[in-house]
Amino acid sequence: MTAPEPQTRPTVKMKPKSNARAIRHGFPWVYANELVTDRRTKKLAPGTLAVLVDENQAPLGLVSVNPESKIIARMLDRDVEAQIDTDWFRARLSRALELRELMYDAPFYRLVHAESDGLPGVIIDRFGAACVVQPNAAWADAHLDALTEALGDVTGCDVILKNASGRTRGLEGLDDVNLTLRGDAPTAPVPVVMNGATYMADLTGGQKTGLFYDQRDNHAFAAKLVSDGDKVLDVFSHVGGFGLAMLAGGAGHATCVDGSAAALDLAGQGAEASRFGDRFTARQGDAFDVLTALGSEGAQFDVVICDPPAFAPSKQAVEAGLRAYERVAKLAAPLVKPGGYLGLCSCSHAADLSKFRNASARGIGKGGRRSTILHTGYAGADHPQLPQLAESGYLKAVFFRLD
Amino acid sequence: MTAPEPQTRPTVKMKPKSNARAIRHGFPWVYANELVTDRRTKKLAPGTLAVLVDENQAPLGLVSVNPESKIIARMLDRDVEAQIDTDWFRARLSRALELRELMYDAPFYRLVHAESDGLPGVIIDRFGAACVVQPNAAWADAHLDALTEALGDVTGCDVILKNASGRTRGLEGLDDVNLTLRGDAPTAPVPVVMNGATYMADLTGGQKTGLFYDQRDNHAFAAKLVSDGDKVLDVFSHVGGFGLAMLAGGAGHATCVDGSAAALDLAGQGAEASRFGDRFTARQGDAFDVLTALGSEGAQFDVVICDPPAFAPSKQAVEAGLRAYERVAKLAAPLVKPGGYLGLCSCSHAADLSKFRNASARGIGKGGRRSTILHTGYAGADHPQLPQLAESGYLKAVFFRLD
Repeated sequence: MTAPEPQTRPTVKMKPKSNARAIRHGFPWVYANELVTDRRTKKLAPGTLAVLVDENQAPLGLVSVNPESKIIARMLDRDVEAQIDTDWFRARLSRALELRELMYDAPFYRLVHAESDGLPGVIIDRFGAACVVQPNAAWADAHLDALTEALGDVTGCDVILKNASGRTRGLEGLDDVNLTLRGDAPTAPVPVVMNGATYMADLTGGQKTGLFYDQRDNHAFAAKLVSDGDKVLDVFSHVGGFGLAMLAGGAGHATCVDGSAAALDLAGQGAEASRFGDRFTARQGDAFDVLTALGSEGAQFDVVICDPPAFAPSKQAVEAGLRAYERVAKLAAPLVKPGGYLGLCSCSHAADLSKFRNASARGIGKGGRRSTILHTGYAGADHPQLPQLAESGYLKAVFFRLD
Repeated sequence: MTAPEPQTRPTVKMKPKSNARAIRHGFPWVYANELVTDRRTKKLAPGTLAVLVDENQAPLGLVSVNPESKIIARMLDRDVEAQIDTDWFRARLSRALELRELMYDAPFYRLVHAESDGLPGVIIDRFGAACVVQPNAAWADAHLDALTEALGDVTGCDVILKNASGRTRGLEGLDDVNLTLRGDAPTAPVPVVMNGATYMADLTGGQKTGLFYDQRDNHAFAAKLVSDGDKVLDVFSHVGGFGLAMLAGGAGHATCVDGSAAALDLAGQGAEASRFGDRFTARQGDAFDVLTALGSEGAQFDVVICDPPAFAPSKQAVEAGLRAYERVAKLAAPLVKPGGYLGLCSCSHAADLSKFRNASARGIGKGGRRSTILHTGYAGADHPQLPQLAESGYLKAVFFRLD
């Protein structure tokens, strides 16, 4: 699938007064309105490698170009003569692996977090001897053979899967066909041990790559809030992220709430595998409905965590999203015992920490409670960020103590 | 020292159109321009307890009033008839203790973090059987006997010291005389075990209460960045916060840099007590000078951490402060080995995360390096925050991986 490269790479040029300086300082993207898009540039196939130059023809680096995308060029290498081959991928992957091996005892982590690991648009999650690759940019799809070979070499993984469900693939003109790139796709969920609990990751049929590694540190913090025997509630639980971690932390009973029966089934399997099966209840349904029902029932928990999907995925959706976060907080707060704890999460790029925290605090107030903030957490260290893109750090988890 | 309370408490009234709603929702302070300051109010002794009412005479709560201060009233209790006696302090302290006992295995932590723990202006750090109290508001100084008695009852501590070095005591019209309130002040530094290292806290002659507990989680993160045998550098080390934690994490050698010989001496004692004495070097001097000298020497470290004092303590000082943070980053970045780690901290209220992160990234760039952000940490959970004051969360630690 690797496209043969032309002998001479095309050149694309930034407009006068566009921000070439930011690119020189490490900003990884050129927006469409910053590039001279003549007829020749418009005709480049999505993912074409090109030399980016500034208005004075000074080279800035090797980019992949996608004339269809608002992000029209992505920086691949400062060296305009770099060959994007197996060796190149090996070097990037080795550097990414070095960090993860330092930070984690077992080979279960996000191995590649796109731009921050030098592979624009590429997500790779590792599950022991299996990797799930999301090549969410055209250049990566075109170089998938070299990437796959390098990934096998660097990690020793014998199963490599392509997950094509990424939302941005459509914007890049890419298909949504999942593939087995190497070895045999697992036919059963893969057990993943984190924070003392065993999670079940469905690498082929689950959401995204099968497990959300980004919340690992926040799961660990929630587990620290638990006293032995506590009753805890995990709303929007997916495969039991917070619930199972809190059981491992000593909770006497966890209730996991999710709209997906398949996710709750995996949560249940994880509880069994962790030997918490007798302390685990799944409750399927719309989270707002279940929160409302629990309120009517007068249910009370020592710790409540709500980790909803992105309510504010775009700038346009921020106001509605913040109202939804406020509503979650308002419904969840009354379910927390006096002196208990409430963890509220957002994975919305567009709602920054301050807005999300304020919406949450407002909701808690409307829920009739007063609060203090104990801890604010972000995605784990296997989800590094470029400083230039850090404003958009998507994941926030804020932990409150209620009166 | 407890002032006798008048039979009838004075009333102080918020101005029309002032933000009584914020007070109702949990904001803990009334600013001077929001209160009707008639002659009677102006005459109230600093720390006088009074009933705060809104413009319609509806009671908002029991406050302490200080006509001299920009924060003219601080909310003590929603119940206007609350008696600020030993029982009242016991209830607040028990609630604070409950959180710390949940979060920490040993009795070494910030026990009371002012407004967030319901004791406005009061800081209490605990060191095993000793507590150091900073009563940084007039009301607390006036009720110190009841506070001391309750603190002894709730914690069982037999040594209680008053530290009067707090900057805000002057604003409240209070003296700067340290006192031994109960038991005998320790004549030697107190050993404190955190993250596998032993720190030496000087409760009577050191900075603030003797140890900064707020960085504990960030120390732990730094320790995770260390591979066995690494050379690490801790600049503005105080008593060795990051350096000793990284030694406990496996570092082969730590260099601690600080301007204070006394602090470095405690760091050295901590290294000895931790059995790292042969892997520890202290280097006294101005941190900027030492960073410059290390650069000239071509010194290289696997991990470098800089935890300077507040360079931007006020809004007026923000620009100069950010330049200082940038300069620290610029001088420190070249000392990090390729692929190594740099942790930069700010304890400036006025420089928010975004500004501090940008200044740091800019400095790293000017130091000739590219970076990704791995982790952002704040003060630990023994430093809770009111959501209404969370914008001013003072401590930030940002950890970078350099190219």
